[in-house]
Amino acid sequence: MEDTSLGGLTADLVRRTLLDAAEIAAAVTLPRFRSALAVDNKEAEGFDPVTEADRQAELAIRELIGNRFPDHAIIGEEWDDKPGNSRFAWIIDPIDGTRAFITGVPVWGTLVGLTIDGKAVAGLMAQPFTGEIYLGLPGEASYHRVSDKAALRTSAVTELSKAKMTTTSPDLFEKKGVAEPWARIRSKVLTTRYGLDCYGYALMSAGHIDLVVEAGLKNVDICPLIPLIQNAGGVITTWDGGPAEQGGNCVAAATPQLHAAAMAVLRG
Amino acid sequence: MEDTSLGGLTADLVRRTLLDAAEIAAAVTLPRFRSALAVDNKEAEGFDPVTEADRQAELAIRELIGNRFPDHAIIGEEWDDKPGNSRFAWIIDPIDGTRAFITGVPVWGTLVGLTIDGKAVAGLMAQPFTGEIYLGLPGEASYHRVSDKAALRTSAVTELSKAKMTTTSPDLFEKKGVAEPWARIRSKVLTTRYGLDCYGYALMSAGHIDLVVEAGLKNVDICPLIPLIQNAGGVITTWDGGPAEQGGNCVAAATPQLHAAAMAVLRG
Repeated sequence: MEDTSLGGLTADLVRRTLLDAAEIAAAVTLPRFRSALAVDNKEAEGFDPVTEADRQAELAIRELIGNRFPDHAIIGEEWDDKPGNSRFAWIIDPIDGTRAFITGVPVWGTLVGLTIDGKAVAGLMAQPFTGEIYLGLPGEASYHRVSDKAALRTSAVTELSKAKMTTTSPDLFEKKGVAEPWARIRSKVLTTRYGLDCYGYALMSAGHIDLVVEAGLKNVDICPLIPLIQNAGGVITTWDGGPAEQGGNCVAAATPQLHAAAMAVLRG
Repeated sequence: MEDTSLGGLTADLVRRTLLDAAEIAAAVTLPRFRSALAVDNKEAEGFDPVTEADRQAELAIRELIGNRFPDHAIIGEEWDDKPGNSRFAWIIDPIDGTRAFITGVPVWGTLVGLTIDGKAVAGLMAQPFTGEIYLGLPGEASYHRVSDKAALRTSAVTELSKAKMTTTSPDLFEKKGVAEPWARIRSKVLTTRYGLDCYGYALMSAGHIDLVVEAGLKNVDICPLIPLIQNAGGVITTWDGGPAEQGGNCVAAATPQLHAAAMAVLRG
C-alpha cells in the first residue's frame, strides 16, 4: 500500500487548492487557445514553444499557492524554483503539451501536483477547452466535467499484445538515443497512438489507454500525474523501475503485470 | 474559381441535411464513446477496429438522407454503396478516426459530404464530445460550437520552414511504401504532429495547422472534408496534383504557395 498521508494537510484543502489552481489557470489559458499568439523558441535548435499563456498561468497559480501555503516550495516549468521551509513542494506545468496548444488540439493540460519529502501525493490534469479534470489524491482518483463526476479506474489489461499504447512523439526516442527499445515495445503492443502528452496518462487513468511509454520527461511533466495513475490502479516508474518523480524515461501501465511486461521489453 | 453550384439544391437544404446528419450520428456515437465496447478486427493483420457505434451511426444517416433524397446515391464506410439515379452522391464516414474513438481521444469525427458528378461540393466534420462542427459549402466555411459561430479561414503560411504539419500516423507511410517522401517533407517543416485524423483538416481550416500530408486515404476519409478546406482558403489534391475525391496519397495546405512547395518535396 502507498502511504496515504498528506502530512497533516486535509484532503479537502489539497483538493480545493488543486481545483482552484486549475480554475485560475483556465482563465488565463483558454482565452488564448486558438487565438493568434507569439511563440518564443525555448531551444535554439528544434521547436519548443513557450507562450504568454504558459508564463502568465504559472504566475497565477504561484500566487494562489504562495498565499495559501507561504512556507511550501514551488517548482514550475516557466519560472525559477521557490525554495520552501517545510516537507511540501507544489509542482506546476501550466501548459503541458505546448505543441498541442499552438496547433489547436485540446489534449494539452494544466498540471498541478503536491509532493511531500519529494514523493508525489496529490495532483490533477485539467483540460479547459473540453472542461475535463482528472484528479488524484490518496485513495481517490476522480473525473470531473461540468456536473459529471466519476471514479477513475485503469483497465484490467495484463498482456502487451492486448495493450493500447501511447507516446507523445516517436521522434523523441530517436532524439534521446533510445529508438531501439521503443521499436521493440511498439512491435509487441496491439496499437500505438501519438500526440497526447499528459492527456494520455489521464485517459489511462480512465481505462481507455493501457500503457504510456515516454523518454526524457522533466519532473514537472510527470510528477503531478503520479497520484492520478497510482490511485486509479496503475503503476508508474522509470524504465529501470525507479520512482518517476524526477522524470526521465518513464513507463506507466494499467496493471502491475502489464508494467512488468513493458519494463522487461524496454530493458531488452 | 470553383464551380459553386449545388446542382439545383439550395444551400439551406444541404446545410440543414449535413447538420441533421451530424446530430443523429452524435446520438448514436456519443453514448458509446469512452464506454466499454466490442471492437471487431476489420483487417486480419494489423488493427482497424469497427465499432457498433460506427455501423449504427451510418445506418441512421443513411435513413435520413434516403428519406430526404430518394434518388441520390449513398456511399459509406460501413455498408454497401446505394446506387442513385441523379448527379448527387452523399459520402459518409460515421466515425473517422476509430482508433482515437476506442482510446478515448476526442479527435475522431463524423464526416458527411455531398458530391455532384463526382466532385465534392459540401461537407462537414462533427466532433460531438467537444461539440464542434466544421462546415464547408460553396462560398462558406464555418465553425459551430454551442452558441458560437465563426467563419473559418486557413493561415497565411506560404513556406515549409514555417509550417505546422500533421498526419495521422508516421507508420502509415512505411506501410504504403512512401517513407522516403515523408522523411523529406518532415525535415523541411517547422513541426509535425501525429494522431489527428479528420481533426487535422478541421484545424487547418481554422488556421491552427498549415499542412496535412497523408498516405493511402479512402474516398470516405477525405471527400467530405474537401469543401471545408477549399472554402476556407486552402488547397487539397493528391501528391501528384490530381483531385482528392477518390483518396489515395493526399496533401492539403493553407495556401497555394505552401501546397506547391509541399508537392515539389513529395515528388522528390
